[in-house]
Amino acid sequence: MSSPAAPVQAAPPRPVRFGILGCADIARKVSRALLMLPPGVAAVAAVGSRSEEKARRFVAETGLPAARTHGSYESLLCDPGVEAVYLPLPTSLHVPWAMAASARGKHLLLEKPTALCAADLDAILAACDASGVQFMDTTMWIHNPRTAKMREIIADKDTFGDVRVVHSMCSFRASDDFLQNDIRVKPDLDALGVLGDIGWYCIRSILWAVDYELPQAVIAQRHPVKNQAGVLLACGATLYWADGKTATFNCSFLTNLAFDVSIYGTNGTIHVTDLVIPYEEKSGEFNVASKSNFVKPTIGWDPLPRKHVGFTDLPQEALMVQEFSRLVQNIRDAGGRPEGKWPTITRKTQVVLDAVNASIDKGCEPAEVAG
Amino acid sequence: MSSPAAPVQAAPPRPVRFGILGCADIARKVSRALLMLPPGVAAVAAVGSRSEEKARRFVAETGLPAARTHGSYESLLCDPGVEAVYLPLPTSLHVPWAMAASARGKHLLLEKPTALCAADLDAILAACDASGVQFMDTTMWIHNPRTAKMREIIADKDTFGDVRVVHSMCSFRASDDFLQNDIRVKPDLDALGVLGDIGWYCIRSILWAVDYELPQAVIAQRHPVKNQAGVLLACGATLYWADGKTATFNCSFLTNLAFDVSIYGTNGTIHVTDLVIPYEEKSGEFNVASKSNFVKPTIGWDPLPRKHVGFTDLPQEALMVQEFSRLVQNIRDAGGRPEGKWPTITRKTQVVLDAVNASIDKGCEPAEVAG
Repeated sequence: MSSPAAPVQAAPPRPVRFGILGCADIARKVSRALLMLPPGVAAVAAVGSRSEEKARRFVAETGLPAARTHGSYESLLCDPGVEAVYLPLPTSLHVPWAMAASARGKHLLLEKPTALCAADLDAILAACDASGVQFMDTTMWIHNPRTAKMREIIADKDTFGDVRVVHSMCSFRASDDFLQNDIRVKPDLDALGVLGDIGWYCIRSILWAVDYELPQAVIAQRHPVKNQAGVLLACGATLYWADGKTATFNCSFLTNLAFDVSIYGTNGTIHVTDLVIPYEEKSGEFNVASKSNFVKPTIGWDPLPRKHVGFTDLPQEALMVQEFSRLVQNIRDAGGRPEGKWPTITRKTQVVLDAVNASIDKGCEPAEVAG
Repeated sequence: MSSPAAPVQAAPPRPVRFGILGCADIARKVSRALLMLPPGVAAVAAVGSRSEEKARRFVAETGLPAARTHGSYESLLCDPGVEAVYLPLPTSLHVPWAMAASARGKHLLLEKPTALCAADLDAILAACDASGVQFMDTTMWIHNPRTAKMREIIADKDTFGDVRVVHSMCSFRASDDFLQNDIRVKPDLDALGVLGDIGWYCIRSILWAVDYELPQAVIAQRHPVKNQAGVLLACGATLYWADGKTATFNCSFLTNLAFDVSIYGTNGTIHVTDLVIPYEEKSGEFNVASKSNFVKPTIGWDPLPRKHVGFTDLPQEALMVQEFSRLVQNIRDAGGRPEGKWPTITRKTQVVLDAVNASIDKGCEPAEVAG
């Protein structure tokens, strides 16, 4: 037999070179995630801050020794070695810097809340579209394999039927220091307050539960809690769909940690209580009930709900960066187009968030959800 | 040593003699509970139905051989061997028969919903008060030891802080037959529909969670689902307290079985998903989180929520009958007065239920909660 020809070696994939624009606390978590990825996915090429000293300290503390440091955001965006920007700046700075990044052809991984309003987001998305760059927001739990597993169950009509009611509560008990000093309570930095920070997750989880069908209208709960500067610290709302589905949510900086989503279908029910930040980063559980009957004479349940427990080698934030990088590589290396799903679900989240804000501004009268 | 005097034997307690007025399905569960009680607590003396044949069949099927049978409700109420009446008739019949029972000095264990409106309930409560008889409604889960354990945790300011948000969902997926024929969808029998049947539990659980402080106002969710006769099949509401607490609930005959209550405090959180009918009748679990922090950098929870699991020898409906019987014995044998706590919490539940109905009737505008 003749010896076979040596196989053609595929070139190893080139990692996507990230620039981190701003040294917020959340950037430490994303840097950690970047370091967890297998070779060939992503690397941190540079970190930019308002002072180079701050960028250097961030690089040293996060263990990113290969990263260049920049003493201004502008300088980072001019770095030709940066292909994609992770942007964790305060929300009020998103429009100028996200647009500047996309104008320079950088793919954009943008912290949530993505913008102060949908009109601002639209400016960012139009810029990304014009530059042909990938856009994704940093809603990490969407990338957790648990989320896909729950979605699979919800989509199974026999198991779950039709979703009719959703409830979500996202909260954490902010410290006094947070309530005085965090950017999330400052009207000039993160003016959306709790609604932008974790109400974002309530809204996204509700939209996710109904496969991103937009509600028609939103009515905010009365008496939202605001700080003296008018920034929301706790609020809630009810969402209404054309077919009679409803959802309620509350978000709060004033109650103990909670990341609950409960989804009620005609045939089934799902409960998860740590959706946004899993109790432990490499496992994830949720409970499913389907076609539950009473044990006669109404003294128990049959069948009992089942607990699903799943494991993931990579935590959800690493999976997020991996998916974003895969899309960027597809554009860069294979002539692909940006994936439109991500900006679409970002925009829907922002549009509902706008409606909640509009309802609050109208004294909790109904607000239409712009299509 | 001289031999001690023979101890004085206390007379064995005389069981409370119940009359069951009406042979509804739920009466089978309560009859079963009565048979589980230790000696000396309670006994079924008689069963009354619109036909004696039906009463005889009920007695045979439920294993109550010592019970007399009556072919009319009136006849049962004239039975001098009946001290206490368990009344599971359709809600529209509560006022005449509950008042007739109390007028004859019978203690009253009344099925929920207790009345079509608070004014009707007030007539019943006034009659009980005038006769000096004990009143209790049949909200069984209140008597589960799990409920007391949860209450203890909520009341612990260090563990739980102040309750700020409550959510409850009670539902079961009614069969086509139920939706056509059950008394709970008939305007002349149980006109409150789902709101009276299981919305009652949502409201009671919310009031229980806030130690029975009445909300100021209620706003029903838009687009409640009604059948052709105008009876509610699914609805929801938001409740507002003077101090900013809020609660939301949904109740439905149209979604899978759910008995959820989630209570969010400044320091702690409680989740229970089988409040009304425990998954298994002799055990009960719930989850508690307290002072939950993030594992840095926001990659987990510390401490993790804890699961409490408790056991009870007697199921909650037997504990309910036992507590009611204890109160009756205290009145009958020890000169005690009726326990006012039970009618008080019944009335609060009914008053909030009225406000939800009022809000629905007003097109989901706010309704004040009558004090």
